[in-house]
Amino acid sequence: MAKPAAVIFDAYGTLFDVHSVVEAGRAVTSDPAALSMLWRQKQLEYTWLRTLMGRYEDFWAVTESALHFALRRLDIAASEAEIARLMEAYLSLATFPEVTRAFAALAGTPLGILSNGSPRMLMAAVSSSGLEGKLAHVLSVDAVRAYKPTPAVYELGPRAFRAHAREILFVSSNAWDVAGAKAFGYRTCWCNRAQMPMDNLGAEPDLEVTRLDEIPAKLS
Amino acid sequence: MAKPAAVIFDAYGTLFDVHSVVEAGRAVTSDPAALSMLWRQKQLEYTWLRTLMGRYEDFWAVTESALHFALRRLDIAASEAEIARLMEAYLSLATFPEVTRAFAALAGTPLGILSNGSPRMLMAAVSSSGLEGKLAHVLSVDAVRAYKPTPAVYELGPRAFRAHAREILFVSSNAWDVAGAKAFGYRTCWCNRAQMPMDNLGAEPDLEVTRLDEIPAKLS
Repeated sequence: MAKPAAVIFDAYGTLFDVHSVVEAGRAVTSDPAALSMLWRQKQLEYTWLRTLMGRYEDFWAVTESALHFALRRLDIAASEAEIARLMEAYLSLATFPEVTRAFAALAGTPLGILSNGSPRMLMAAVSSSGLEGKLAHVLSVDAVRAYKPTPAVYELGPRAFRAHAREILFVSSNAWDVAGAKAFGYRTCWCNRAQMPMDNLGAEPDLEVTRLDEIPAKLS
Repeated sequence: MAKPAAVIFDAYGTLFDVHSVVEAGRAVTSDPAALSMLWRQKQLEYTWLRTLMGRYEDFWAVTESALHFALRRLDIAASEAEIARLMEAYLSLATFPEVTRAFAALAGTPLGILSNGSPRMLMAAVSSSGLEGKLAHVLSVDAVRAYKPTPAVYELGPRAFRAHAREILFVSSNAWDVAGAKAFGYRTCWCNRAQMPMDNLGAEPDLEVTRLDEIPAKLS
């Protein structure tokens, strides 16, 4: 693929490992992976459903609602303090191990984030990860009060980078996010860490990798 | 609750048991329940995502795409003929056992269906279930080319029944569908067969039952 004018990354699941909250989950359950999975699934569902309903709430509120559902559904008793600690884990998520190397190899190309996260959540995650100085733009869907894969969200990228979507590479580990970005007009790369089949949404990624540091070599 | 001007039911999961396709699944897998669950989850996800992307396809196409994903994800080999038989199961789903009794007890109140299903799918399911003569309106989202919980979908009910949403009781087993209908303005009843916690979407049902035939006694 020809070198893009910019590379925009999804945040949660792509740069930041949302399942790193499993550690914090150990305090409330013997199966923190099940809690983490249901929490994440409900978090995404609520972003989609609230956008369709026209009832936007920011990602912190949605994430908290999803956590409360997951705890009740899995019959896990958690104190207010324990719930607060689980939520705080979202502010300092681990980055995937290859992120630093991938960013270094992309030096010279403007990089950005386009995420469902609220500005406060993104600021915290970016600064705790040490990626701060490396990003030209950190874009939150909060600016348009709707979640991915709404076209108005993807529009934030070309506007910030003053480039056409077709000149920008959008990278996500979430298959449905890749489909949304592709349908909008981006060049896309699916970081398919778990080697899953692609979602059937009528839009296929231009590139597919299993780790982010495979991307630089694919750009000429 | 005061007697409503009309009662509108969701179809899949509420009147018709989508997991009755499990029977057809036995031909391709030893764990047809896992196939049925993933198929249903992906089917819903694709309706939400396609609506957000502005890429509507009818429910037959979405259901088929979801089935293909589920088969690949679960590593199930299925022939074209087997896939066709799984899809056909959707045209003659079993109704939940109490449906006939519930409809009989509601006689005198205009009844309808408002469903994600395509007109052809709904016609087939309704006629194979014997509910045909009991419904004043069978409404498909296909008329507005968007899926629940988009407000434009729920608008079809008041228009067909020439009544305000607040005079109509909307009944669904899908918590997110109840939340969408409530946010739109209907009176709502959640048929919570599995006794799950309610989804946290900022809209609570007016009534909650575990079977549809509990509804008539709650209307005065």
